[in-house]
Amino acid sequence: MCTGKLQEVFQAVRDASRFVALLSEEVKANILKDLAEAVLEQTPFLLEENRKDLEKMSSDDPKYDRLRLTESRLKDISLDLQHVAHLSSPLGTVISEEIRPNGMLLKRVRVPFGVVAVIYEARPNVSFDVFSLCLKTGNACILKGGHEAELSNKAIVTLIKNVLLKHGIPGQIVELLPSSREATTELLHADGYVDLLIPRGSGRLIRYVRENSKIPVIETGAGVCHTYFDSDGDVKKGAAIVCNAKTRRVSVCNALDCLIIHRDRLKDLPEICSPLEHYGVKIYADERAYAELEGNYPQALLQLADAECFGVEFLDYKMSVRTVDSLEEALQHIAKYGSKHSECIVTENEEHAECFLQSVDAACVYSNVSTAFTDGGQFGLGAEIGISTQKLHARGPMGLEALTTYKWVIRGNGQIRER
Amino acid sequence: MCTGKLQEVFQAVRDASRFVALLSEEVKANILKDLAEAVLEQTPFLLEENRKDLEKMSSDDPKYDRLRLTESRLKDISLDLQHVAHLSSPLGTVISEEIRPNGMLLKRVRVPFGVVAVIYEARPNVSFDVFSLCLKTGNACILKGGHEAELSNKAIVTLIKNVLLKHGIPGQIVELLPSSREATTELLHADGYVDLLIPRGSGRLIRYVRENSKIPVIETGAGVCHTYFDSDGDVKKGAAIVCNAKTRRVSVCNALDCLIIHRDRLKDLPEICSPLEHYGVKIYADERAYAELEGNYPQALLQLADAECFGVEFLDYKMSVRTVDSLEEALQHIAKYGSKHSECIVTENEEHAECFLQSVDAACVYSNVSTAFTDGGQFGLGAEIGISTQKLHARGPMGLEALTTYKWVIRGNGQIRER
Repeated sequence: MCTGKLQEVFQAVRDASRFVALLSEEVKANILKDLAEAVLEQTPFLLEENRKDLEKMSSDDPKYDRLRLTESRLKDISLDLQHVAHLSSPLGTVISEEIRPNGMLLKRVRVPFGVVAVIYEARPNVSFDVFSLCLKTGNACILKGGHEAELSNKAIVTLIKNVLLKHGIPGQIVELLPSSREATTELLHADGYVDLLIPRGSGRLIRYVRENSKIPVIETGAGVCHTYFDSDGDVKKGAAIVCNAKTRRVSVCNALDCLIIHRDRLKDLPEICSPLEHYGVKIYADERAYAELEGNYPQALLQLADAECFGVEFLDYKMSVRTVDSLEEALQHIAKYGSKHSECIVTENEEHAECFLQSVDAACVYSNVSTAFTDGGQFGLGAEIGISTQKLHARGPMGLEALTTYKWVIRGNGQIRER
Repeated sequence: MCTGKLQEVFQAVRDASRFVALLSEEVKANILKDLAEAVLEQTPFLLEENRKDLEKMSSDDPKYDRLRLTESRLKDISLDLQHVAHLSSPLGTVISEEIRPNGMLLKRVRVPFGVVAVIYEARPNVSFDVFSLCLKTGNACILKGGHEAELSNKAIVTLIKNVLLKHGIPGQIVELLPSSREATTELLHADGYVDLLIPRGSGRLIRYVRENSKIPVIETGAGVCHTYFDSDGDVKKGAAIVCNAKTRRVSVCNALDCLIIHRDRLKDLPEICSPLEHYGVKIYADERAYAELEGNYPQALLQLADAECFGVEFLDYKMSVRTVDSLEEALQHIAKYGSKHSECIVTENEEHAECFLQSVDAACVYSNVSTAFTDGGQFGLGAEIGISTQKLHARGPMGLEALTTYKWVIRGNGQIRER
């Protein structure tokens, strides 16, 4: 149990969580719609506070763009809030229902977690995301943003609390923690107060949280993604999928890192890789692949792969190529180097596809589809709180349902247990 | 990532997990049926090894009975194995299925976790439970039993491996770790090798695992359970439920610890408590309740409650009684002192029941039913790996489904993502 300075804050959020769990869907939707309007009305205030944060950062810093709010970004945020307001809530869904032999009615019903905490870095828009998805799912939330976004986040939470006040809702259903390291430490020890902790950000942050948290965590993040071009792959589909998965956005976790190719199709490798040239993708090829690409791909963008090139999340216009002798060898490569995120096979052979989809242990397994689709919106979840890279509770894109748990509800008329 | 002595063992189990995930239901059922027979055939060997463990323990030790195997217990274990063999498997269940607007087919399918580890104490029967439930759900498993049961567990795992061998299955799908403390530490750090860790045993063990594990944990265990006798409760039902919940088995986590009574029904308290006298249940009553019970309940079994008597898991013939002025006060008491395990209201008032079932944050909430039913078998789950006291992934009694996760399977014909 936490005993630090923030204990009172945690207790207040815990107490408020009982209240938010019972709010009607209508009230929650109205709050979100009002918040969407408030974001537009208060745009100058939000931009001003954001500007103060930005002034403290060099505009060359890769985080600068993530930290930055603009009028157009705030408009998008406002639209997102409207969108979440209209989503249907998973709360109250009956997962199973049964009358037991002794006559008692046993139901399993979706309920909120209670208190959800999110630790994130420079992006202030995450504050809106987390609040709106938690409110929709009946959860109170604790926000722990990065110090770079301190004033932006304070402004956002002030805005939210003002809207809550108008609706007569206790402001404690959302609390922003100080941006200090100590606050992070206290949060990681807040068992009994916080039911779920989601870290969003760099691999370093996520690792730190996993290794130090005393409360249940859902990990998000790192994706080392492969596409396997099978002996029976279609070259056109392969070229389009590889290019899309690699270049649509290189900074996202579902981006392609390693193309695996069956040795019988090495002669097609130049055609499969040719669209990448336009994007300046640097290729780290193993010996057999290198031999095929040499002379057929710009030499400046080609390099012989060493061991370091596999199992890496590049987050850049870079990709490794590995040649295998069989589907089984491809599966072994993925089992060894993949991060269980998104993995794809390109093949016209149904048996190979089935074997791949069954055997590969990953959140999302694809046959003849770009891994770029690993995303809550693309999967039709309506919203996304993150992409889970663990297996407990939620896997892959997490929507509203991932922010709920269930309880067993039992009704009877005096049943007792015999033995 | 673990780098210790056990790394090779972990890697071998990890590798074997790919194999067990693909076993057919028929093969798994046959293995379990053969194991059920082997337990009967090898009863003398198992009892002999168990006897060596027992010799090292005083027969007064409360763990002695838990450690002890008998012919009749082994028969029960054999029947349990037969039973699990015949359960239907959740693997392959399609949780959701949809054709997305771009034509790709998106399915969410139940799959094994991969490697499940269980840390437990003196009970050797847990080794059979864990292996059978993990095999049924396509998981490899790592067993970390208590040092008291070392020889018993070794004998059990030898037996299992012999049966696996006959079926041509790699023995590495189940491994027993050394019973040392160092092995526990290594296991807690085996991220990348172990997907899920379940501690079963004392509160101290569970707390230690929660605080030190780097891999996802499902907590089981502690239950501080309340029954609230409402202003509109039925005395007969109340008396039967309270007595059953308190006395059926005092050592289990669903046993009643605190009776909460509405002040308007204090005069019924002696009748509600009277069946407890027969079992010698000691009552720690608050002042108002004490005044009612004095002279109506054996004085030797009655004591005025102090603050220490609430929020306690007695695991004994002991119970506290708290008087409240309202349903709301009862809810507050449960929110403050409950362990979110099993909570009950006794009432004939539908509105009060509904409010209680909605408001109480616990794995199992009951109206007019004894909390003794919190159990996988009673809930119709077929088998139970434990009772989760956390909210992530599984809550309350955990059956086969709790030992599975899901993956997203996407099939298409070359779909790429536009933006």
